[in-house]
Amino acid sequence: MSQPPTPRTRVRRLPELGAYDRDTIDPIIDEAIICHLAWIGPDGDPRVIPTIHTRIGDALYVHGSAASSTLRGIKGGVPVAIAITLIDGIQFARSMFEHSMSYRTVIVYGKAEEVTDPTELQTVFDAITDQVAPGRSKDARRPTADEIGQTTFVKIPISEASAKVSAGFPEDAEADMDLDVWAGVLPLTLVAGEPEPSPDLKPGIATPDYVTDWHRPAG
Amino acid sequence: MSQPPTPRTRVRRLPELGAYDRDTIDPIIDEAIICHLAWIGPDGDPRVIPTIHTRIGDALYVHGSAASSTLRGIKGGVPVAIAITLIDGIQFARSMFEHSMSYRTVIVYGKAEEVTDPTELQTVFDAITDQVAPGRSKDARRPTADEIGQTTFVKIPISEASAKVSAGFPEDAEADMDLDVWAGVLPLTLVAGEPEPSPDLKPGIATPDYVTDWHRPAG
Repeated sequence: MSQPPTPRTRVRRLPELGAYDRDTIDPIIDEAIICHLAWIGPDGDPRVIPTIHTRIGDALYVHGSAASSTLRGIKGGVPVAIAITLIDGIQFARSMFEHSMSYRTVIVYGKAEEVTDPTELQTVFDAITDQVAPGRSKDARRPTADEIGQTTFVKIPISEASAKVSAGFPEDAEADMDLDVWAGVLPLTLVAGEPEPSPDLKPGIATPDYVTDWHRPAG
Repeated sequence: MSQPPTPRTRVRRLPELGAYDRDTIDPIIDEAIICHLAWIGPDGDPRVIPTIHTRIGDALYVHGSAASSTLRGIKGGVPVAIAITLIDGIQFARSMFEHSMSYRTVIVYGKAEEVTDPTELQTVFDAITDQVAPGRSKDARRPTADEIGQTTFVKIPISEASAKVSAGFPEDAEADMDLDVWAGVLPLTLVAGEPEPSPDLKPGIATPDYVTDWHRPAG
């Protein structure tokens, strides 16, 4: 499934790195554990915050507290822009100019609509829990009606979105190839350390596999 | 050095996690290798992109191509919001509701001014190279005047900024403490893998220490 670029999703800089198909876009959204949400504040100036997200089918869901000024500000169909970025490495070129990052990023534009259907809210709660650690939703206590009331989810259709993927080795100018400067890629990955059980954890509860084996991409 | 919060930098949600002092803010900016920059597009809707940044004293510098529509759009004193986020872990609570991330984030608001002074541009080129891999600027070829002309740096004073830091263990409600659900923290870190020399690397060039020993925070 592909969607033609719009004037704002079209990748202008290094257009060969741009992609508009959901086969490229969805895995980036699904691998990330945070996103950055931008909107326009009540004073007319831009705002941006990190938050967590999940995807169900063709919709991106973003989480927040019902008491959050951000979520209160955007939930009524306000235009937002969401960036989801995965860092894959550093490209060391011989020249400073050709240095770059290896990354995968998706930008989604759209209007945020509050999720109000109780069944959809339960589904989204599960999905956002599993976004961060797939499998966790079957163990954790589901939200009460009161907790759902304290939480806001907004939903943005993934209908105006683009991906940009930079990978591989840096490309230096021919004139620089003979310099005595190391060139190459240093891969970077978000890696889990040793799980730390809560000091008040009930005795006899084993650390679940989705914690001990956590890795990205999941699966 | 501390700056009082403004209406938009004041951390309203979980205000006990908020900080406004440069001793908290600067190390977060300095450890991060990417930021997310938000501004308002020519159509009046919000925009957000990932990019790289560096800090010199009281100024945050953001990098872009001179051909970038973003950089062309913001360099003339346009209001921007910049988020710098470090992911430190996942807080697994017994309830879905109390799940959280461990993170450190800084938001800087301000107006982006283009850097035009040639000496300052050279200094910023060095600093942004060292932001990603400290020490790299002494090895990589410095930019030519033409390369500097193809690059835009904008500068935002770090005068309206806030940090938010979430760490430690999740806090479940008393009623949930007896559930048979694992609770704890899974630390997450951005980790370097094996350096991959460029296939066209000149023979006899050793991989530098700042590549083989790369870690965050640097130093």
